[in-house]
Amino acid sequence: MTKEKNFSQWYLDTIFKADLIDYGPVKGTIVFKPYAYRIWEKLQIIVDEEIKKLGVQNVYFPIFIPESLLRKEKEHFQGFTPEVAVVTYAGGEELQEKLVVRPTSETIMYPYFAKWIKSYRDLPLLINQWTNVIRWEKRPFPFIRNTEFLWHEGHTAHRDHNESLSFVLKILAMYEKIYQNILGIYGFAGRKSEAEKFAGALATYTYEILLPDGKALQGCTSHDLGQNFSKVFEIRFQDKDKKLKYIWQTSWAITTRALGALIAVHGDDRGLILPPKVSPYQAVIVPIYGKTNKKKIDNFAQEIQKEIPETYFDATSKTPGYKFNFWELRGIPLRIEIGEKEVQTKKLTLYRRDNQQRLSLTQEDLKNNLENIFKEIEENLLKKSKKFTFDHTFSVNSYNEFKKILTTKRGFIKAFWCENKKCEAKIKEETKATTRCLPIQKSRSKIQEVRSKKNKCIYCGRKAKNEWLFAQSY
Amino acid sequence: MTKEKNFSQWYLDTIFKADLIDYGPVKGTIVFKPYAYRIWEKLQIIVDEEIKKLGVQNVYFPIFIPESLLRKEKEHFQGFTPEVAVVTYAGGEELQEKLVVRPTSETIMYPYFAKWIKSYRDLPLLINQWTNVIRWEKRPFPFIRNTEFLWHEGHTAHRDHNESLSFVLKILAMYEKIYQNILGIYGFAGRKSEAEKFAGALATYTYEILLPDGKALQGCTSHDLGQNFSKVFEIRFQDKDKKLKYIWQTSWAITTRALGALIAVHGDDRGLILPPKVSPYQAVIVPIYGKTNKKKIDNFAQEIQKEIPETYFDATSKTPGYKFNFWELRGIPLRIEIGEKEVQTKKLTLYRRDNQQRLSLTQEDLKNNLENIFKEIEENLLKKSKKFTFDHTFSVNSYNEFKKILTTKRGFIKAFWCENKKCEAKIKEETKATTRCLPIQKSRSKIQEVRSKKNKCIYCGRKAKNEWLFAQSY
Repeated sequence: MTKEKNFSQWYLDTIFKADLIDYGPVKGTIVFKPYAYRIWEKLQIIVDEEIKKLGVQNVYFPIFIPESLLRKEKEHFQGFTPEVAVVTYAGGEELQEKLVVRPTSETIMYPYFAKWIKSYRDLPLLINQWTNVIRWEKRPFPFIRNTEFLWHEGHTAHRDHNESLSFVLKILAMYEKIYQNILGIYGFAGRKSEAEKFAGALATYTYEILLPDGKALQGCTSHDLGQNFSKVFEIRFQDKDKKLKYIWQTSWAITTRALGALIAVHGDDRGLILPPKVSPYQAVIVPIYGKTNKKKIDNFAQEIQKEIPETYFDATSKTPGYKFNFWELRGIPLRIEIGEKEVQTKKLTLYRRDNQQRLSLTQEDLKNNLENIFKEIEENLLKKSKKFTFDHTFSVNSYNEFKKILTTKRGFIKAFWCENKKCEAKIKEETKATTRCLPIQKSRSKIQEVRSKKNKCIYCGRKAKNEWLFAQSY
Repeated sequence: MTKEKNFSQWYLDTIFKADLIDYGPVKGTIVFKPYAYRIWEKLQIIVDEEIKKLGVQNVYFPIFIPESLLRKEKEHFQGFTPEVAVVTYAGGEELQEKLVVRPTSETIMYPYFAKWIKSYRDLPLLINQWTNVIRWEKRPFPFIRNTEFLWHEGHTAHRDHNESLSFVLKILAMYEKIYQNILGIYGFAGRKSEAEKFAGALATYTYEILLPDGKALQGCTSHDLGQNFSKVFEIRFQDKDKKLKYIWQTSWAITTRALGALIAVHGDDRGLILPPKVSPYQAVIVPIYGKTNKKKIDNFAQEIQKEIPETYFDATSKTPGYKFNFWELRGIPLRIEIGEKEVQTKKLTLYRRDNQQRLSLTQEDLKNNLENIFKEIEENLLKKSKKFTFDHTFSVNSYNEFKKILTTKRGFIKAFWCENKKCEAKIKEETKATTRCLPIQKSRSKIQEVRSKKNKCIYCGRKAKNEWLFAQSY
């Protein structure tokens, strides 16, 4: 099945052919096989380094949240209730209080914030944890919607809103940088609507990615929690002026869903295309043996392998053609072919997975240009992703245009909306499209402007301040 | 409370004073605060590197195990049933099948082994995962017995018993090396008795550590699963001789309990004593400011900080005495004091946490000797732990001697036992001491031999082949 004709079937086929997962025994769960887990591990190391640079420290809070804690913040409880799994029985006994299996950790962490934070000197408090989380999914889709997934969740406490909001945006910028510079995935950073924000947050910031079928994927979130939780959990500090004040909070996360984005955005009909920094191997060496030259080729290959970090030398007994397909399917960024000609001429034959181009380089040139080649690959992936996004982002002036795009072209739609929840709900009901975000204005976010703006809500015609990003979504 | 007088109170006091944990809201759970989690993270990196060297790849399997899978291996099910937590309700509905929250992952992994393994070419299969696990604890004790703890669990599949058993012992040797060379903790490696082995295993290997109160702590386990699980889960491969054969399996784990061992074995009445390789900081610089020399001291301190990886420069406004206590409590291996004298003479004043010795070194000498100093600290910790273990390991010839040791001296007891379960059960019932392991013979394991051996079971007097290690335990 081609990606063009049937994206979701192509996606599933690719995931299984590239040996990334198996379905778990419980609906909606998956087994991360070694290749998929290694991609996640590499992304983890990158994210962990970045957040440690911001002064964030890792911790671990229990997975079981007593139901009474989850109930404390009403919107939060209502938002998560339909999705939670509940332990009612443990250690051979019916439990007196039901335990919710962590869907997110605000309500188990914040009673401790109340205990730990007494003075402005205890602020900011910056913590993070890497864990599994459970959210029951009615319509699971591997990596993108799973009943159990892996993530990190950062939680911070600050003295005032200025500081906390600036942290929220710093994290959003960090995620954007990782998506663009490391993963080569373009998207729109922006603020969620009131209806679409995190249950219990003051505001939610997001990075919205366009998948090949024209649906949006929320790539991460960074929440401005305001004082909603601090008031409920009584988290107060004595400020310099001796007054007791409620803290300002943030929480933010990136999940294994990022692997879904990688597969969906970059992959082609030959399989995965992985960005070098998160690929399990940066390069693979495929020897092309003649009848008598195995030893020569192996020696040369091993020499090359030493010079490229994280290179796999595929010396199995399969044919070169089999190996070419095998590693293309798995998306290794660079293939290095070594046969008689390469040994003789001391020139290597390279194949770039991202653009299917061949290169011929001496060992010395490869060494000197390796970093550049990988950088070019990253840039090319981002360029392609950006072009696809812009080619499928449409600015419309009327609800008719809006509906037409959804039935004919699919993609992101930019449209003025009055920010009234009723219009948003009606649009969702009638078109299945939701507000994805109010994009943060940036000069580089030039999209195809169809005609001059009317500044009127496309649904009700009333005055509208902002042009929002809409799409059907995962 | 001193360690000598009341170990368990000292242990709890130290954990809280060093800011390692808080108790979780559910009994038996703990919150790993940043300092504790950082120690675990450092140990994780070391263990992960070692197992990757053996060719083991990381994966992730779901936390929820359908009860029907857990039931498949009878001994395993019986062993874990009293300890499991069970999800009965999820996504707004009563579940049709109860889901057990992972107490260990054999029964969720092995159906996949049956799917993945077809031929001898698929072997060995070597995988591992880093996860949380749940085992309901009636008498929790932080790090050492928790309802939820963190661990890694390795699972491997092999062609024959020779290969799988040799892998089991390779892992045991790796754990022993980490305990001794990295953590400085002496112990006895050996095989568990039939009654004490892992539920479902053919044999369990362990590293038994003596805690200061004379009780034993199982530091890790490496299980020879034989074909018990492969027969139940129908995991067969076609061997070179074309015959279908059941695979041979191993599983093995080290947990956050290792942090408990670290605290208990090395700590003193001033607090933790951490081995350099897992300490959150290897050294701390404490400036001792005079009235006018702050800038000079800070400059010198920053110069030194650059030369020592993972050094913390404590420039807070607290007094030097406060800082000395603070960092001694947290067990930082090396303190570097910098005051007027040090700036003038360009000689640094060092303080070793492990032996409370002071050293005076030039900047140049420190740089050149740093690795040696840390090595000496590691060796000193191991030497002390070894001495304590040998001083409290007693070889006895009669049940009277056995009981006397338990009431007067406490510690490890070596005694002949006929390997009949009834004697073992009676000894446990009457003395609360259990068999810890049959130590693997090594020339260095010289303990105090009281008199010549009788080779008779201390309980029943029948012929006994081996001298086993006994102790009361955690």
